[in-house]
Amino acid sequence: MKTVRTVGFGLLVLCGTLLTAVAAQAQTDPLPSWNDGPAKQAIVEFVKATTDQASPKFVPPVARIAAFDQDGTTWVEQPMYTQVIYCLERVPVLAKAQPELKDVEPFKTVLSGNREAMAKLTMPDLEKILAATLTGMTVEQFGTPVKDWLATAKHPRFKRPYPELVYQPMLEAMKLLRVNGYKTYFVTGGGQDFVRVYSEPVYGIPPEQVVGSAGGTRFGYDKSGRPMLTKEPKLLLNDDKAGKPEGIHLMIGRRPVVAFGNSIGDKQMLEYTQAGDGARLMMLVHHDDATREYAYGPKSKIGTFPDELMAQAKKQGWVVISMKNDWKRIFAFEEK
Amino acid sequence: MKTVRTVGFGLLVLCGTLLTAVAAQAQTDPLPSWNDGPAKQAIVEFVKATTDQASPKFVPPVARIAAFDQDGTTWVEQPMYTQVIYCLERVPVLAKAQPELKDVEPFKTVLSGNREAMAKLTMPDLEKILAATLTGMTVEQFGTPVKDWLATAKHPRFKRPYPELVYQPMLEAMKLLRVNGYKTYFVTGGGQDFVRVYSEPVYGIPPEQVVGSAGGTRFGYDKSGRPMLTKEPKLLLNDDKAGKPEGIHLMIGRRPVVAFGNSIGDKQMLEYTQAGDGARLMMLVHHDDATREYAYGPKSKIGTFPDELMAQAKKQGWVVISMKNDWKRIFAFEEK
Repeated sequence: MKTVRTVGFGLLVLCGTLLTAVAAQAQTDPLPSWNDGPAKQAIVEFVKATTDQASPKFVPPVARIAAFDQDGTTWVEQPMYTQVIYCLERVPVLAKAQPELKDVEPFKTVLSGNREAMAKLTMPDLEKILAATLTGMTVEQFGTPVKDWLATAKHPRFKRPYPELVYQPMLEAMKLLRVNGYKTYFVTGGGQDFVRVYSEPVYGIPPEQVVGSAGGTRFGYDKSGRPMLTKEPKLLLNDDKAGKPEGIHLMIGRRPVVAFGNSIGDKQMLEYTQAGDGARLMMLVHHDDATREYAYGPKSKIGTFPDELMAQAKKQGWVVISMKNDWKRIFAFEEK
Repeated sequence: MKTVRTVGFGLLVLCGTLLTAVAAQAQTDPLPSWNDGPAKQAIVEFVKATTDQASPKFVPPVARIAAFDQDGTTWVEQPMYTQVIYCLERVPVLAKAQPELKDVEPFKTVLSGNREAMAKLTMPDLEKILAATLTGMTVEQFGTPVKDWLATAKHPRFKRPYPELVYQPMLEAMKLLRVNGYKTYFVTGGGQDFVRVYSEPVYGIPPEQVVGSAGGTRFGYDKSGRPMLTKEPKLLLNDDKAGKPEGIHLMIGRRPVVAFGNSIGDKQMLEYTQAGDGARLMMLVHHDDATREYAYGPKSKIGTFPDELMAQAKKQGWVVISMKNDWKRIFAFEEK
């Protein structure tokens, strides 16, 4: 009997501790980097309603799919997409192994370091650079230099490694969703394999939850007979604009109930998300903070946010996040 | 104090119940439909070793990916793949809406019901039938008739709906893996969207964990402006043979540590699974039970298991499951 009582007391203490922890959790703000306002409120209320069985907005756990664009929505995309910077900075490494590239365009221009000439590179030029730096190797060989580069390369303005340029408020929103049973997915125009290299350590999103622009691979055997997958310069999915809902269907097979984007490239994903039955949350990050990050919109070369997107957001009830007003802190490295 | 004591007692009762349940679970055979033997032992020992932190074979939870072929591995694939039977039985329904099909081959032959003539249909004929019955509608419109058909259509030999023709031992193996933190995936040559319709209720595998032969979709708007995805007759992934590891990389982005197959079409998936570091489990279902299911092998039109596959299995340590000897019960409807 003594044993039972002791065990009972131990359990009582344990349960008490758990209850205290739960109470503490409830009192802690899950979105501390967000200012109070309509954007923060929209997230908190959506999560509360969709996880409350008594609410008409309740969403069963299996259907809790949240889709996030990456560039410009969860990390900095200026002055260029991080992946493009990687590819450009990878060219000199390639040229060491293949010196003949030094005399071939567009590699010659990239190697010149002439920024004015580089700015004039065309889309076909860029495609050649992407093919040379992102394909032709096994999927394992691809990951290693990406990891190394992410650990050392620095952003020209912030002078910090790119993984530090994630938006702290978005990390908090992702975490809040996950704690409430949502599966968080990237649905990015960026390369699927590129994003998979760091999505888990940086964002807590595992490789199998990354939907991105995807190239084909070819199964074969190396000289020793070991099976391998080689990355091919063949585009299977251009995960941008209409390609986003198409990619979501291909890779997930369910319509998301939550979608976050930041540009015209996310329009179709938000429309598709909203067109499902029941509760839905569509949000757009608006870059309007030149001091702490960037302010860009209709005239940006990337991350374009035209006036008609703003009009559509208002009309359809999509919540626009003002980086300036809604985010107390943008980066984890900012002083609190 | 009384309240605390009452709560304490309640918790004690609750915890006692839980402990009893856990103990009962531990004593229950998780694979009751398997006979004791090398196949059952291989699964049980693999799960035990890879989930034991003290074992050199330990696999971290995030890497626990298990891939299952479907047709012939987790349910009956004779006399034809279930999806092909669906497509053929769908032709008369289509012909009602489009009477012109009655005079067009290969639909004319299918509508004739002449089995001898149908057996002579070529692969291009079959492709026309698949395109007509599996594409051209929205992804939602596609699912409804598949669900209805699965609820009513019956297998010619077993006279039961197809979802009852799943292999009970494989359901148990999947469940054992899931209880131990494995994510179970289908990696099937069958249509990804077709399998997604029933994978969750029948196998406990959610749509996002179905990798299959996949066609493209096209994003657009219906007459009322509502966004929709239309299934297109464009093959993005032929998820068979080399297409299996390629599909795994595309959709999952991680190498599985467990793979189950039953035919030469699964060879590359098993090779790719085995080529990773650490503990691996590769298994092949061998159809050698004509009495309870089917016995087929090198000469079958589908589910081909040539002698060289058996030789490779022996050489590489892949475990061959004899349906006759390793499975105590094949179907849930069999008497125990």
